Parts: sequence; C-alpha cells; structure tokens
Amino acid sequence: MKIFLVYAHPEPKSFNGALKNQAVESLTELGHDVKVSDLYEMDWTHYLGKKCYTEIENKDFFKPQQESMGKKFIEPIKKEMEKVAWSDLVILQFPIYWFSMPGIMKNWVDCVFARGFAYGGDVGILENGGFKGKKLLISMTTGGPSMFYSKEGQFGEVQRTLFHIAHGMGFFCGMDSLKPAIWFSPARIGQEAREKMLKEWAERLKGIENEEIVPFHHTKDYDENTYQLKKGLKTNLEILGDF
Amino acid sequence: MKIFLVYAHPEPKSFNGALKNQAVESLTELGHDVKVSDLYEMDWTHYLGKKCYTEIENKDFFKPQQESMGKKFIEPIKKEMEKVAWSDLVILQFPIYWFSMPGIMKNWVDCVFARGFAYGGDVGILENGGFKGKKLLISMTTGGPSMFYSKEGQFGEVQRTLFHIAHGMGFFCGMDSLKPAIWFSPARIGQEAREKMLKEWAERLKGIENEEIVPFHHTKDYDENTYQLKKGLKTNLEILGDF
Repeated sequence: MKIFLVYAHPEPKSFNGALKNQAVESLTELGHDVKVSDLYEMDWTHYLGKKCYTEIENKDFFKPQQESMGKKFIEPIKKEMEKVAWSDLVILQFPIYWFSMPGIMKNWVDCVFARGFAYGGDVGILENGGFKGKKLLISMTTGGPSMFYSKEGQFGEVQRTLFHIAHGMGFFCGMDSLKPAIWFSPARIGQEAREKMLKEWAERLKGIENEEIVPFHHTKDYDENTYQLKKGLKTNLEILGDF
Repeated sequence: MKIFLVYAHPEPKSFNGALKNQAVESLTELGHDVKVSDLYEMDWTHYLGKKCYTEIENKDFFKPQQESMGKKFIEPIKKEMEKVAWSDLVILQFPIYWFSMPGIMKNWVDCVFARGFAYGGDVGILENGGFKGKKLLISMTTGGPSMFYSKEGQFGEVQRTLFHIAHGMGFFCGMDSLKPAIWFSPARIGQEAREKMLKEWAERLKGIENEEIVPFHHTKDYDENTYQLKKGLKTNLEILGDF
C-alpha cells in the first residue's frame, strides 16, 4: 500500500513522535511505501488565503473555492496534493488540541483538500469524492484518561467528537475511515505502558490493509430530493460512535 | 458589555465580513464596548510551538502545557489574551471549513487558550475554567443549505458538529455558550435574502445580554469518582443538538 503519514507535534521526542516512528518502521518492514509530512518540521504556516495561489483570477473578490478550480497552487501545497493523490491510505498523527486536530494540521487540510481536487466542480462528494478508493486513519493522543472521553464522561464520546474529521473531512471527500486509534493519556502512564501501546500500534498496522471500514452512508441511503436519510437508518454520528 | 469579536475570512467583502461589520455597528450603537481581531488582516501565522514563547524553560523536551505556565508569551499572543481577559462575550465569526473553524482561527485558539490562563494549573475546567463568567457566541456561515445540516441530512446536525467548539473549546474553559448562529448558504440566496439575514443578526444582537445559555452540565452533574454523568441526564452533545 502507498501510505502517507501526516504528523503534527511540536516535540520530536514526544509519544506522538514515537507513534509516527513506529508506524514508519512497521509499515516499511511490512513492504508498504511510506511518505511522511512532518508539519512542525516543515514550519507549515500556510492558511487558506490569497497566498495559496501563484496568481489570483478574481482580484476584486477573493473566493478560494473559485481560485482553486484554476489549480494555480504554490509549490508547497502542490507537493502535498501530490502525496495525497499518490496514497492509498492517509494517516493523521496528532495530539488532541481542543477536541480537534492542531491548527497547523487544520491549515494543512484547508489548503490541500481544495475544491476541484478533493470535492466540487467535476468531482463529487461522499463515495464519489476526489479521494474515493483511499482510506483515512486518525491516530490521536489525549491528555486525559479514557473515562473522560466516554459518552457520559465529562468530555463526551471521543469518536463522536471526531465526526467532523472522520466524516466531515474524510468521507466527505470519499475517504473511507478506519476506526480512529485513540491513545489515552500517554504522558501519565509510564514508560512500560507507553511501550505496550507502541506494540499495539505495530500489531494493528500488520492488518491495516484488511481492516473494516466505518460504514458511513452512501448517497443511495439518502432521499434524492430532500437529502435526508431514508427511514430507519442510524445517523453517521451514531455509526461512528458505535463502531 | 465588553465584546471581543474574533473574525476569520479571507475576503473583506464577503458575507462574513458583512456579519462582522453589522455586529460592530449594532453592538456599538447599543452602547457595548467592542474589540475586533481580524485574523486574516493580522496575518496570524502563529501555531502552538516554541515560537509562542520568548524563552523556553525546558529546552530538552518541549511541552507547551509546561511552558505556558511560565507565561513568557510573545507579544501578539499576550495581546490576544488581554482581549479575551477583558471581554464578557467572545464572538467567533467564521465560515465553516471542513465542519470546523478555519485553521487560522484554530491556531489562534491553540495559542491563546493557554494552560494556566484558560484552564489547568490553579485554574479549573468547566464552570471553574479560566473564562468563567464569560460567554461564547459562534456565528458561522455554510456553503450548503440547511437541509444538509439536519440530524438526518448528508452532513449531520450542525449544532452537534460544533460540539468540539461550543463545549470543547468554550465550556471546557468556563465560557457559557449562546446558541450558535448558523447562516446557511449566503452565497447562493441573493442580495435581498442576505440583507434579511443581516437584519436578523442586528435584531438578535439587541437582546444579546439576556439570552439563554446552552445548559451544559456542571461538575455537580458528574459522579465525583468516575466523572460520568449521573443517571438519567442527557449528554452535552444531546443538549447542544436539542437547544
């Protein structure tokens, strides 16, 4: 498989760094092709705006959705698009920051998942999105322990919280989600438990090609006029939370 | 009231820009004090990392949660913290990008909602968070029409999607959420309908001081050992979705 690992953590010696290194090592050993974008190392300061393009078509009213169709992206964004296009699986490795991905990674998504490439124009959405045939795997660390991230816990069910990434960014563009890997509280559990987690990660990655995907609804499951789920179907939020 | 409006849109002539201008005009007329941070105009490229601090205490292992406790923030971050500390109400004005806020704004949150200021250390979380007594109002535009953002719609219920902001960023630090204002599909509805939206916005802002808050659970609603909601209570996700 061609695997593109996008990694965002400010400290290379962090557990996020270790998870990234473990993934690169394991996946390479398994015979996969691996590319990595280390967003902190790259000092990714691009955000969706005029500077994403080498030339702006409509100088009077800037509209990224429109400019993106012209495909005049700056080199750093083009390179990332090429890596996404190349890949069969995208792994996002990050620490939870405010119940989402770090801003540096969100900016990466905003810039790279451009209209006409990820969705829109001639490209569809959901199972017809620009990234159809690809898979997405979120690998995220938390500060707090797992009990806080349960459905009835103080922070709410973590998989549901990640709906905006797994469905909103991933499946929106056609990427099938694998079950997000949540690494609870590595900073507080000691070296031995962290090493156990790394082994679990390596173990999971052995079967990565044949994992089940989160069964988000395809277009056929929605009424074609109202775009509402057909009667009796679970919502995507419930599907993700219960997967 | 002291109102801090944080605004992120790449085009000043956009409907987001109009909503921002309307808010400044209306709120000022009503006698409120208003400050604005226009993140695109400020070219906010800061992300949570070493460059957020004038000095790093632990050079061997960078940990933002630890460095933030030393409060040696660079000037641009300090200024934003002062505006948040000053305010009674924070309004976040942004277009939905990938079912969340734009990365430029997420970076702002990552940098400004620092440990020891927003939460952590001597500062609590939830109703004891660093921003207790403050309110949060999300004002967000969408590309697609409202039917896509219903519970059974293709994109899922939009208020629930914003859980990671309203509860995860806001109430986590003690900020009470007002009902998020969602402006559906302004780019597609024509000038007259947009002007009607601006009037609705101005109308809503007249009563902003006395609006009901989203009744997220306080610490007392959780078991003190397991941090799970006491029996029979709705989850925060449900509360937000049904508000």
